[in-house]
Order: sequence, then structure tokens, then C-alpha cells
Amino acid sequence: MHNKFIIEALDEGLAEALMEKINLKTKPPGSLGVLEALACQLGQIQQTLSPQICQPKMIVFASDHGIALEGVSAFPQEVTAQMVQNYLAGGAAVNVFCRQHAIALEIVDLGVKNLPAAEGLVSRKVAESTQSFLQADAMTPAQCQQAISVGAERVSLAAKQGSNVVAFGEMGIANTASAAAVMAGCLNIDVAECVGRGTGLDDKGLQHKTAVLQQAMAYHQGEHTPEQWLAKVGGFELAAMVGAMLQAAQLRMTIMVDGFICSAAALVASQIAPLVTQYMVFCHQSAEQAHQRLLDVLGANPLLGLALRLGEGSGAALAFPLVQSACLFLNEMASFASAGVSREHD
Amino acid sequence: MHNKFIIEALDEGLAEALMEKINLKTKPPGSLGVLEALACQLGQIQQTLSPQICQPKMIVFASDHGIALEGVSAFPQEVTAQMVQNYLAGGAAVNVFCRQHAIALEIVDLGVKNLPAAEGLVSRKVAESTQSFLQADAMTPAQCQQAISVGAERVSLAAKQGSNVVAFGEMGIANTASAAAVMAGCLNIDVAECVGRGTGLDDKGLQHKTAVLQQAMAYHQGEHTPEQWLAKVGGFELAAMVGAMLQAAQLRMTIMVDGFICSAAALVASQIAPLVTQYMVFCHQSAEQAHQRLLDVLGANPLLGLALRLGEGSGAALAFPLVQSACLFLNEMASFASAGVSREHD
Repeated sequence: MHNKFIIEALDEGLAEALMEKINLKTKPPGSLGVLEALACQLGQIQQTLSPQICQPKMIVFASDHGIALEGVSAFPQEVTAQMVQNYLAGGAAVNVFCRQHAIALEIVDLGVKNLPAAEGLVSRKVAESTQSFLQADAMTPAQCQQAISVGAERVSLAAKQGSNVVAFGEMGIANTASAAAVMAGCLNIDVAECVGRGTGLDDKGLQHKTAVLQQAMAYHQGEHTPEQWLAKVGGFELAAMVGAMLQAAQLRMTIMVDGFICSAAALVASQIAPLVTQYMVFCHQSAEQAHQRLLDVLGANPLLGLALRLGEGSGAALAFPLVQSACLFLNEMASFASAGVSREHD
Repeated sequence: MHNKFIIEALDEGLAEALMEKINLKTKPPGSLGVLEALACQLGQIQQTLSPQICQPKMIVFASDHGIALEGVSAFPQEVTAQMVQNYLAGGAAVNVFCRQHAIALEIVDLGVKNLPAAEGLVSRKVAESTQSFLQADAMTPAQCQQAISVGAERVSLAAKQGSNVVAFGEMGIANTASAAAVMAGCLNIDVAECVGRGTGLDDKGLQHKTAVLQQAMAYHQGEHTPEQWLAKVGGFELAAMVGAMLQAAQLRMTIMVDGFICSAAALVASQIAPLVTQYMVFCHQSAEQAHQRLLDVLGANPLLGLALRLGEGSGAALAFPLVQSACLFLNEMASFASAGVSREHD
């Protein structure tokens, strides 16, 4: 890889000091459950006992997939460009939830077919769609590197503008197929265990998608590095998310991981630089069937379980207020001493 | 009962119209998971295709429990009054999360020991604590009725002030013991199946709490109505929540149900008037061990599962933005037609 990402381990000593602060708050020890571990992680990431969320940013990476032409999605390929237009007009789920929580939203075009430049769209086309990875590599190593760099670039800019929490979303018809293939390759498991219904395939559609992916994985079989799998069967938006995550961790930003496709990017990033997961908040468990396995591999315990399967970063946006809550209780709750509240019996 | 609550069933025809509207939104059908059912419920409660959340209100009912003197809690009884002072000073978890989400917070004293009247405190003392229900009724039928009426009164006022969503919280050292006894009585099951660690009992403490509760339930054994169980083994804040929930449903308000103790109140309310549950949003699954069973009985699928066990309405406040999100996507997302996005393949 051209880019080298240098990621520091979180400070365990600081975790102890944070847990001490949390345990002085006026509540039974441990009673805020998952939010306590989250508050601790945020403090460790920001290297402070009083973490704060500044200028939260959602970056949605969009790109088309050659494999879409093999009929692996319930929706036609033109929907990628149409949905990007929808984001620009403010009408998609991710727009609504980002507005709700004052999360700045950026849309990046890595390779959407028939999508002209437009106001509010960050145009970083690597190509007009990836190649179908059924009997070819989805992209060249140089294209993969370029997409990774775009992700890193957008995160660096967000950091420069004052953001310390970034969430990532994606749009690309057929990208659950690509994510399943990346997952199968990186974990060296049968792609049938990684495939799901995506945007809503029926049984017949799922069967077809599985058959296409098995054929593709047979073509690509062999020992490959995570970056090689990304180039062979990935997507430009997946590669951009990998670069974005690695860069965010290097800059000590909190990374909000959305659903199945983002988690596949997280897997690749973690195989490149294992410490990156220390900076990740897993936002929700998707209804996409292989997501649980991916979360298990990543050691992740996501915040929400709402049976979402929409993508585009919507689940990360929905989980955002919980991240905020974790900071707020740590900073604003009274302690037993300051509030004059008695502790538990010995 | 003196109060008669008249609760209307939700309109199934409207549910169909709402699902039709939801399915026109620019997203794969069903892909917002649990939020879609929630949006539908909110529309049905408000009898509109465009539900809105107005003046959300959290009412925390506080009261002391005679049973606390039997050593069934990890914390001493004086903590009830101390925590109420903490709420009034703005330093507790429920304060932090209500501020975060602009939820108005009201604290009602139903019977907290050594708690003088104070600015910002709604004083509605039924008595200075309930009686220990180990060998007596916790309250008289008249006291129970009075507490129910206080809950209904506070909700009526909130409605008059423009609120259409109410959440309830509670404070009262030993109230998981009381809630467990109410649950056991109303479901006619062994109290050992309803008891949990509350604010953090160790094994020995849990054993003692269970033994105390078994002795109490033996004393109260027999066929009793839900209101009778409430008077025999309940708490003033539990009774107030029952009245508050019934009144909220009568006024077609959305009821946000917090954890174990609120769910025990929801159980009593549902046995008095089964339609009340149609107006309830179950906010989280608590770490208190009997909560899952209570949720199963109520047919509830809570929004969050963060292993919370703090009470005071904190879980309801944390879930509030999801209720907001459900309204917002229904009202603000573009439709396939308006955004020019293609539908799925036939």
C-alpha cells in the first residue's frame, strides 16, 4: 500500500480513571450498561476524562458495481444515481436522521454511472462503475488505492474542519453482493455464509445471488491480502470507507460503523491495521443475515438492534444520540459527593 | 375503582393507509425495521398520516417503601429523598437525557420520607412511605385510589399544556421488590421468578430479597384483582404510573414505558384496561432479570437493549430520539415518485 496508517492503541490507564469517574456518578455502579463502556471508549479515544462530540459528520460514499448487471439486486442499477440525487435534494432517510441530529452530511461520488457533477456533490470518480467481478477483477490495484485515498482525504478534511466523530454510509446497487464476497475472501469462508437478501431479494433471487457469488469466488480463489480482495471483489465505496476508517483512527476520531457493508469495510481495515477497531462504535445489528457473524469476528456489540437493512448510514445516524448521551452523562451527572447522595451498604 | 378510564382501540384501517404511505418512501420495503411499525403506531394513536411529537414530557413519580426496612435494596432508604433533591438540582441521569432531547421533566412526590416541599417539586404526598407489605397491606384501597388519581391528574395537565407524548420514571428505594411482588400477584406466579438484583444486590442480598418476598406473598396469598395487588404489595409511585398510563391512553397520548418497574405498572394497567398497551412504546429491555418475562406477557418488543438498570425514566429518555425518528421519516422522506427513483424489479 502507498498509504501507511499509523494508529495508536488506546490507553488502558486512562480507561481505569474514566471508570473511576463513572463510578462516582449518582447511579448504581454499572447501571447505564453499554453506555458506560461507550463513555469510557470515547474518553480513551479523545485522551480526556471529559470527551466531547464536535461537528459530527456523515460521509456517504457512492459507486456503481459491475456485478449489478448479473441480477444480484432487487433494484435496477440506475437507482444508485437516482438515490444520490435524492440525497442532494434532502429526501432520503439519511438526510432526515442527519438533520434530526445536526450531523453534517457529505456525498462523495466514487464512480456512479450517469451522474453528472452537481452542487453539493463531491466528485471523485475513479471510473464509471467497477467491472463485474464474475470473471475479472472489480478494479485495478491503482484504482483501489485511489478510492482508499479519497476516503482518507475526506476524513482529513472533516478533521481540519473540527470534526472528531465521523460516520460512514454507502450507496451502490449490488454492494451487499460485493461486501459478501469481500467478507468471504478475507475470512476464507464459503460465500454462501456471507450472502443475504440485501434490499429485499426473494428466495429465488437469493439463490441466484448465491450462485453468482460462488462462481465469482471460484474464479478468484487463492491466497490474497485484504487489499487484494478489496480490488478483486470490492467496490469503490467500500475501498473509500476502508481508507476513511484508517485515516479517522490515525487522527484519533471516533468512527461510527453502520450496517453490513460498513462492517465489511471495517473488517478489511482491521486486517490491515488491527488497532483501528478500538476507534469504532458499532451502531446497529442489521437484518442482513451475515452481519451477526461479521460483528462476532470484529468483537462488536452494536448499540441498536432495530432490524434495519437500509444502508446509506441511516443506522449510524439513528445511533448518534446514544453516543452523545454517553458523553453527556460523563460530563454532566452529579457525583455522590457533590449531590450528597448516600452510597450502597457495605 | 372510582376512576373509569375509557380507552379506544386503534384504527386498523388507518394502519393500512400508514403502511401504504411508508411503502412509497425511497427505501426498500421494510428496511427501516422496527421504526416502521413504530411510525404506524404513532399515526394510529394520533389518528393521522402525519404524526408529530409535541411537548414531550417525562414525569418521575417518587415514593418510599416500607419494605425497604427489610433490607431488600443495596441502597439505604434515605437515598429516595436524596435522589429527588438531585433531580431538582439537575444532576441525575434522567435530567441529563431529558435536557439532551428537550423533554420537559416533572418530579412528583407521592410519599418520600423527610422530603420537604421545594420549588420545582410537585407535592402530592399520600403518606410518609407505604407500610412494609411483609405482614400488612402496603396501602389502603383509598390511598391506592388517591395515588392513581395523582398520576391521572399529572397526565391531564401535561395534555392541557400541549403534550402528546409522555414518559414515566420512578424513584423509590426497594421498588424493584414491590414491582416483583405486583408482577407475581397479577400473573399468579412464584415471586422467585420475578425478583432480581435491583440496584445491584450480590448473591446473598438476592437470596434475602427473595426470601422476604416469598414470605410476603405467602401472607397475601389468595385471589385478588390487579388494583388489590397494587394496594397490598405495590407502591405509591407504581399506582401513580398505573393511573398516568390509563389516563394517557384515554387522552390518546403515546406512552413511553421505561424498564422493569414501569413495565410492572404497565401490566397492572393492561389488566385493568387491555387496550392501554396499544398506546405504549416499550423503550428498553432492562438488565433486571424478570423484565424479559414481563415484556413477553405484554407482547412488547422494546426499542433498546443496552443492559440498563437505572430506572428513573432514563431508558425512556434515551429511546426518545427513535420515536422522533419514526415521525420524521414518515413526514420528511421523499417518495419514489416525487424523487424520481425506480422501484424494485417485478
